[in-house]
Amino acid sequence: MTYCAAARDIAFILNHLTSFPALYGAGPFGDLSGDLVASILSEAAKLSDTVLAASNRAGDLDPAHLVDGQVKTSRGFAEAYAALAEGGWIALAAPQEYGGMGLPNALGLAVNDMMAGANMALHLKLMLTQGQIEALHHHGSEAQKALYLPKLVSGTWSGTMNLTEPQAGSDLGDLRTRAMPCADGSYEITGQKIFISWGDSDLVENVCHLVLARLPDAPAGTKGISLFLVPKYLPAEQGASGEANRLHVAGLEHKMGLHGSPTCVMVFDAAKGWIVGGAGQGLAAMFAMMNNARLSVGVEGIGVAEAAVQKAAAFAAERVQGQPLIAFPDIRRLLAEARAELFAARALALKAGVALDMARLSESGALARETAGGEPVSPADWMARAAFLTPIVKAYGTETGMRAADAGIQVHGGMGYVEETGAAQFFRDVRVSAIYEGTNGIQALDLVGRKMRDEGQMAGLLLQEVQDLAARARPDHPDLAEPVWEAAEAVAEAVDWLVGQPPEMRAACAHDMLQALALVLGAGAHLEAVLADPARLALAAIHIGRVLPRHAAALAAMRAASGLRALSLSDLGL
Amino acid sequence: MTYCAAARDIAFILNHLTSFPALYGAGPFGDLSGDLVASILSEAAKLSDTVLAASNRAGDLDPAHLVDGQVKTSRGFAEAYAALAEGGWIALAAPQEYGGMGLPNALGLAVNDMMAGANMALHLKLMLTQGQIEALHHHGSEAQKALYLPKLVSGTWSGTMNLTEPQAGSDLGDLRTRAMPCADGSYEITGQKIFISWGDSDLVENVCHLVLARLPDAPAGTKGISLFLVPKYLPAEQGASGEANRLHVAGLEHKMGLHGSPTCVMVFDAAKGWIVGGAGQGLAAMFAMMNNARLSVGVEGIGVAEAAVQKAAAFAAERVQGQPLIAFPDIRRLLAEARAELFAARALALKAGVALDMARLSESGALARETAGGEPVSPADWMARAAFLTPIVKAYGTETGMRAADAGIQVHGGMGYVEETGAAQFFRDVRVSAIYEGTNGIQALDLVGRKMRDEGQMAGLLLQEVQDLAARARPDHPDLAEPVWEAAEAVAEAVDWLVGQPPEMRAACAHDMLQALALVLGAGAHLEAVLADPARLALAAIHIGRVLPRHAAALAAMRAASGLRALSLSDLGL
Repeated sequence: MTYCAAARDIAFILNHLTSFPALYGAGPFGDLSGDLVASILSEAAKLSDTVLAASNRAGDLDPAHLVDGQVKTSRGFAEAYAALAEGGWIALAAPQEYGGMGLPNALGLAVNDMMAGANMALHLKLMLTQGQIEALHHHGSEAQKALYLPKLVSGTWSGTMNLTEPQAGSDLGDLRTRAMPCADGSYEITGQKIFISWGDSDLVENVCHLVLARLPDAPAGTKGISLFLVPKYLPAEQGASGEANRLHVAGLEHKMGLHGSPTCVMVFDAAKGWIVGGAGQGLAAMFAMMNNARLSVGVEGIGVAEAAVQKAAAFAAERVQGQPLIAFPDIRRLLAEARAELFAARALALKAGVALDMARLSESGALARETAGGEPVSPADWMARAAFLTPIVKAYGTETGMRAADAGIQVHGGMGYVEETGAAQFFRDVRVSAIYEGTNGIQALDLVGRKMRDEGQMAGLLLQEVQDLAARARPDHPDLAEPVWEAAEAVAEAVDWLVGQPPEMRAACAHDMLQALALVLGAGAHLEAVLADPARLALAAIHIGRVLPRHAAALAAMRAASGLRALSLSDLGL
Repeated sequence: MTYCAAARDIAFILNHLTSFPALYGAGPFGDLSGDLVASILSEAAKLSDTVLAASNRAGDLDPAHLVDGQVKTSRGFAEAYAALAEGGWIALAAPQEYGGMGLPNALGLAVNDMMAGANMALHLKLMLTQGQIEALHHHGSEAQKALYLPKLVSGTWSGTMNLTEPQAGSDLGDLRTRAMPCADGSYEITGQKIFISWGDSDLVENVCHLVLARLPDAPAGTKGISLFLVPKYLPAEQGASGEANRLHVAGLEHKMGLHGSPTCVMVFDAAKGWIVGGAGQGLAAMFAMMNNARLSVGVEGIGVAEAAVQKAAAFAAERVQGQPLIAFPDIRRLLAEARAELFAARALALKAGVALDMARLSESGALARETAGGEPVSPADWMARAAFLTPIVKAYGTETGMRAADAGIQVHGGMGYVEETGAAQFFRDVRVSAIYEGTNGIQALDLVGRKMRDEGQMAGLLLQEVQDLAARARPDHPDLAEPVWEAAEAVAEAVDWLVGQPPEMRAACAHDMLQALALVLGAGAHLEAVLADPARLALAAIHIGRVLPRHAAALAAMRAASGLRALSLSDLGL
């Protein structure tokens, strides 16, 4: 069976589980209508199912590689990328003044979901460019925006993020790349960066690197880090790509998966660059980009989950061992739990995207009351909602992708372990999503740290919303509503407890708290789906009956978190 | 850091958590002593840590491949295999009359654990030969035993299992390979088999295939299946390998991992073979072999878990991001939970092995009362205990391996996703263990089906033992004892309920029941460890506080198992 992007589920979630319809024709989304959205989803699905999906296997079998120091991409990637660029799909949400469509973030995420399921390796290139557009849009100078944004939006040029160095991964405080100021206001960047996704390619005329580096005499640690825009070719007159900059790809990583995405070791040897934002503001600017990218990475996991489950379900329907595999309860279990998690994760991701859009709408003044009968929600509150959901979507979305790909292999049995079915590729490809753009452990720390500085208010609000849904669902579906209400209550109590704990204890509970929240918020989304469409009941019952109960294990683990500190090195086998 | 086989933990479990010491000097184990066991474990560890581990990467990077229709194995495998054969490590538990050492099964499993952690691909070759020895020992004719067993035990020849055909995987009833009787009492075997691990190699003089096939006019389904011994070279005078048989390797699978193990498509073209056991008895004979092999596959998962956690812990101790990774609570969580599960799984595996040995001892009449102060346990009861634990060890052991390898990648961060660290190899290699020798779904069905035909008696007995341990631990460790006692109670109730359910419902609950039992029995092993050595307390607290609570999620999922049947194909995305 061929991949079939989840346009139907995405439209259902946008229209029935979020405030998305409030955007139609409103404020900055004046041109947006249900018809336009339907047509964008349908076109994106068509492109995903055909040209993008067609090149996915080639990305694995014919990895990106270096020829004379330049990255040569996999067979079919050039055609697929050209189709994306031509159709204006590189950056749907980018501002119209720079050639984008100014469409809602949620729609951008929806399209990313479809495309990542079709071809995660190539989709990653778009995601990085989208992040760079975001960073330059908010932190670049007017001249930088005018010069770079149209090129990035059209896909003629592409963007990268250069953070990691061999000694500086999750902790960027120790990074050593240096930026020396030049007389003309530019800088000379010198250093080595590793794990640079799409650090080079033959798909674009120019590659624009956003590089974290230190100015001379910058303070130690993260406060001394600034951000620089360092293009592969120095822009010449009329924005054409000119002279080659002093940077090169020193090598490509040999990775377990995502072979279609060239992961570069980049060497900057007094390369010319321009500062983005103020001195020492590098991490702030980069995080603007990262936050967006983190949502998209969660969505990558969701897209791959969709593709993996589809392939496995099709195999299970066709393959007969006495009876079709799909008739065996254990095969149904594998597929159903993956589907239930996938729906929940996708709903959370789109809710986060819509929150960003509602913030923008609310900020524009076009909407006084976003929620029927409720108090007006401020842009800051919408932003806080998106910010809170972001680490959950990143971690839970990618873990959903990993579990679904794992289930996909298991459903295929021996055929899943041989590479020809493609089930193994999903498993290998999606694994990186739990690592890059901040490991899932970092996401959990972000959740219980920065995102709970409000003393758990946003968590409490979201859990209250789940309880309100449970109350609405109770008359018709008491068996579904009750466990969700109780789970939300238990998690809310755990949040109240956690915000009173010292940082070390918060950190020890971070993973479990993220899991518990993701499970309960996901169950809330399933309830909401049932309220909107009773045909969604069977899958909701799987989530609430078979997936949600894991929240109690996570809460129990939190209660035993202090045991992690009690372990000696010898307990850990050292 | 280099691999260091877990001789210490294995010895601790054997000596303190099982009846293993009862074997010393008793009955068929007259030569066995604590010193001998210590020296075997130490020698096996040495061999594993050096020559076996040294060739593991080569197995991945330089896969087994075909040259002129013959398998050429990975660099270093010949040397490693020669060392194993020379040292008499191929089949420790094989009978002395055929050149084996007649050592306990538990010791054989212990050595497999060490060796699988060092080099799972090469270890698999031993495992298959061990299974063939077992099958021939119990079902072969005297002539077959005399001719084949000494060669197999010495490692001069090796064994394979030929079950799967393209249309017949988990359901063997549909297999089509034919056996035509010849005038001389032999048979001509014709058919194609797939997924044949180590179907050929350049490490041995001869490869002996055990092939499932149908006699003419055999009834349809599994009752019409017989077992045949089909050597690559027909044995000539004095047992030398003679003329080539009419069989060949048609190709090797391109797998996600375990590249060092050649997975062959075997073609039998009127190949000469000899029947093993009676006509139509093929599956029974093969299952004798499979049961043993299933324990060993569980142990493969455990061995790889050990190797993966060791590598990750060493990395976490060395790698500094602000502070050493090992100081971060989330990194400790990943390592600690993997270690806690690993200890539990290893204890269950060795307990199963010891049960087999106690059955043998008890059968020999050398022991009247195996348990201090208890009733004599019959050989059949010991066998039933081993049989009950087997699917749990297979499924939970391999899942422990998968989770540990996954944690290993996550601890390494980006370095785990690139292939050079080897963390990814563990993850790719161990994944197959949940599939072969009966998928883990098949294991769960075996548990709730065949292994609970006693109406849950063995499950009840094992859970009662856990509660007895909890009662013993309660005075000193109430916080550990209480949740274990309660969990055992809850699982016992679930068993009582399940055995009253119709087959379809049992099947829908199979996975969850296996998980719940594995978690509670594992927690019992941790309690037992604490009672024997208080230094084991910190890890036991991790298991009981953070891992065991998952049993409640599994029991809750069972209560919602009927929802699996309620799903429509469209709920599953079809």
